[in-house]
Amino acid sequence: MSAYAQLERRFHRLSNIEGATAILDWDWAVIMPKGSGERRSEQLSELSLICYEILSDPKLGDLLCDAEANKESLNDWERANLREMRHNWAHANAMQPDLIAAIRKSTSKCEMLWREARETNDFKSFAKGFGPLLELVREKAKVKSEALKMSMYDVLMDEYDPGFTTKDIDNVFSDLLAFLPALLNEIIDTQAKQTVPVVPKGPFNLRKQKELSLKLMEKIGFDFDGGRLDVSHHPFCGGVPEDVRITTKYDEKDFTTSMMAVLHETGHALYERGLPKKWRDQPVGKAPSMSLHESQSLLLEMQVCRSLEFFSFAAPLIKTVLLNTGSKSSHLFDSRNLYELAIKVAPGPIRIYADEVTYPLHIMLRYHIEKDMIEGDIEVNDLPDAWEQWMKKLLGVSPKNHGEGCLQDIHWATGDIGYFPSYTLGALIAAQLFEKVMIEIKQIKSDITLGNFRSLMSWLSDSVHSQGSYYSTQDLVKQVTGRPLDTRAFEVHLRTRYLN
Amino acid sequence: MSAYAQLERRFHRLSNIEGATAILDWDWAVIMPKGSGERRSEQLSELSLICYEILSDPKLGDLLCDAEANKESLNDWERANLREMRHNWAHANAMQPDLIAAIRKSTSKCEMLWREARETNDFKSFAKGFGPLLELVREKAKVKSEALKMSMYDVLMDEYDPGFTTKDIDNVFSDLLAFLPALLNEIIDTQAKQTVPVVPKGPFNLRKQKELSLKLMEKIGFDFDGGRLDVSHHPFCGGVPEDVRITTKYDEKDFTTSMMAVLHETGHALYERGLPKKWRDQPVGKAPSMSLHESQSLLLEMQVCRSLEFFSFAAPLIKTVLLNTGSKSSHLFDSRNLYELAIKVAPGPIRIYADEVTYPLHIMLRYHIEKDMIEGDIEVNDLPDAWEQWMKKLLGVSPKNHGEGCLQDIHWATGDIGYFPSYTLGALIAAQLFEKVMIEIKQIKSDITLGNFRSLMSWLSDSVHSQGSYYSTQDLVKQVTGRPLDTRAFEVHLRTRYLN
Repeated sequence: MSAYAQLERRFHRLSNIEGATAILDWDWAVIMPKGSGERRSEQLSELSLICYEILSDPKLGDLLCDAEANKESLNDWERANLREMRHNWAHANAMQPDLIAAIRKSTSKCEMLWREARETNDFKSFAKGFGPLLELVREKAKVKSEALKMSMYDVLMDEYDPGFTTKDIDNVFSDLLAFLPALLNEIIDTQAKQTVPVVPKGPFNLRKQKELSLKLMEKIGFDFDGGRLDVSHHPFCGGVPEDVRITTKYDEKDFTTSMMAVLHETGHALYERGLPKKWRDQPVGKAPSMSLHESQSLLLEMQVCRSLEFFSFAAPLIKTVLLNTGSKSSHLFDSRNLYELAIKVAPGPIRIYADEVTYPLHIMLRYHIEKDMIEGDIEVNDLPDAWEQWMKKLLGVSPKNHGEGCLQDIHWATGDIGYFPSYTLGALIAAQLFEKVMIEIKQIKSDITLGNFRSLMSWLSDSVHSQGSYYSTQDLVKQVTGRPLDTRAFEVHLRTRYLN
Repeated sequence: MSAYAQLERRFHRLSNIEGATAILDWDWAVIMPKGSGERRSEQLSELSLICYEILSDPKLGDLLCDAEANKESLNDWERANLREMRHNWAHANAMQPDLIAAIRKSTSKCEMLWREARETNDFKSFAKGFGPLLELVREKAKVKSEALKMSMYDVLMDEYDPGFTTKDIDNVFSDLLAFLPALLNEIIDTQAKQTVPVVPKGPFNLRKQKELSLKLMEKIGFDFDGGRLDVSHHPFCGGVPEDVRITTKYDEKDFTTSMMAVLHETGHALYERGLPKKWRDQPVGKAPSMSLHESQSLLLEMQVCRSLEFFSFAAPLIKTVLLNTGSKSSHLFDSRNLYELAIKVAPGPIRIYADEVTYPLHIMLRYHIEKDMIEGDIEVNDLPDAWEQWMKKLLGVSPKNHGEGCLQDIHWATGDIGYFPSYTLGALIAAQLFEKVMIEIKQIKSDITLGNFRSLMSWLSDSVHSQGSYYSTQDLVKQVTGRPLDTRAFEVHLRTRYLN
């Protein structure tokens, strides 16, 4: 058997174990009784150790070299697959197992402290766990930086968004800063002059909210033979392409948050479902980056569903399912009112409640702080002050406590430093892709108004989903939209939606 | 590190993977969307292959020999653990990986054919899958028989019920046959002279049935921080001791089947929860046999809950939860009526609907046929006739089609030959253990009448659950009840319940 064929077998095995892990992670968040966390942690650690053993087997390194020396015998997809294999190998083998285990242990501890500390606004208690974890993440960044020849922050980002560097992110943020603050003020002024949209009053029956979610998912093209919708503390998309599992969280008082979360996760889910069937068990058959994944959820949620066209289709459905379970005021379910609620812009301290205009500012703040932390320019105890300063500067607001300040996100507590830029990259990619959709599918707006998502999904499937990691994220954007990723489409989108 | 300590580490790893597998199996039966079976199969095969690799690593064999040579340095539990490790090793290493893979593949195919064939009563189509599978199981029995120095049927049974041999089963069945047919007739005559109990009429609201199940489980001592109740096609108990998951299947027309299934599975679950905490990740911390496991479900269901004492406690609760969701006839929920329904005896063709008196006869039939199949005395095509003959002889009934005849059980279709005797061994062990309970806990009947299960559960926990596999099943029975397993307690139980 050729070296490449042997590699495919090994990565197929890896994919099976990762897939099993994905279902167990979902189970943890959705199903698991609270007393069994410790045992489940052990099982998950075991599976992750097995994955590490597969990737760190010296024989695998030899096979990679052999296959790379015989690249000419491979077709284009196989070559792309080999490139992705090498990327996975490089990250796994840059660290010693001791460091991996230490990070895992420290992460568990820090996450638990964080859950408690966020509720009680107790920064000191969080810092006790985060101090040691940050040291370990710095150590990881250092050894990876040496092994992969990238800067410390770049190498962390490379786990989530290969190909993007600090330079790219700095450029993107500087381009955004060139227009966003002024635009934000303009939008706030404009919205202040308009009639204030009115929130339909609950309580909205939770089963009815679920019924609405299922109907919308089905309309958009979710296949329930290959996935599920459930409830968890935070909405997410998990599982495997053949069994993609999204979650939401229903709020009796407000149906819109759970509904928008479902639409967002449905975007992730349809991407997973659309990954190339032939390659799903190989690295090239998976998403190339978190930013491209996020672009698919944001394209659906922000570009498509927070539009007047979408609410023209959805409002009658929403009204049919929800009217009389909560609000009895029929006119509050009109498309115009629901649309205006969906695009209300207001700077606030909390990222996950932020609108699409202020969202990038939340990301910039985190990006600057975490980069400084990794580079040793600020220490854990400087975090609250740095947060306060950036918050004031970028968003003009002050968190009233640590819980809605620097303790609001789980990412740092789980050691996920380098992840935040993906959110904004995703928003930019979504805008640039949808700009192209509007050119290529002339009737896209009327399709959405009619609740017909087939043209959109077929375009996304062909252009993005079915490409897996054949292209890097940046190459894919260029390939599909005809130019490298920039902030123009995003800016045009905001100006069109919020100022026209 | 000593050889024994190294073994503990390897078996701990095995236990983690098996535990992960148990959750994924549960997910398959309860949660999984129907389109993802193929991918899940692959993931499960991968995990099972990893377990095989751990057990078949030559180094593990060496460690076993080393540890056995240094037994004097081990304490009693460690020695028992080493014995169980050797048993697991012997079974795993008796077969070549090719045969294991062939059986797995053939089993998947046969199970799918069986699902279809059972619905359509199509024996020929089932035989197409079962013929090749039976050949493979015979091959497995042959190679294991040579490796483990046991007869072909004994070695199959040894996977489920180590220590029990054909000789034991033959003795048990001959003892049962000495009284059971006459007793059965006597019971039928007796019940014919009594007032016929009346089935409360549904439909019973499914959520109310679930509420009843949860209340009963809680009363008996199920800890919902370490387990769940869900719905599946067939009731089962899965998961791991820290996260034990039972299922039932609700029927709108009849609340008793789901309720009795919940009580049965709760018996399994409490056993799992009671396994020794310190040893849960080692072979000695797991159940020694399927028969002992079944004894714990049957002790709860048959000995405890199909009693007038139990219904004296449960009837008011059942009435409170269910009355007016279905039947409005309050008197049908009286303890006497519910009890008499629970102990109605009637020979029928279907094992899973059989009462405790006729159940052993169903097992005898299967035992004789499967032993003959393994020993080559009958072939697949002889199955329907053999079934018909044994059914007539033992139960005096004829299946009206293959679906309620030889296609009714899943066991053979999944290659599980040698399992059936566990059911009857379990019933006998349950009776013998409960006979001892009645001696040692004087107030047990009034405790049950009051819905107080603490004395019972504490006794079971001390005497059985916490023993893990420290003793073999037969030694445990002897240790706890003072005599080897026999049919006397079961006979006394039947005579007392059905003829007094």
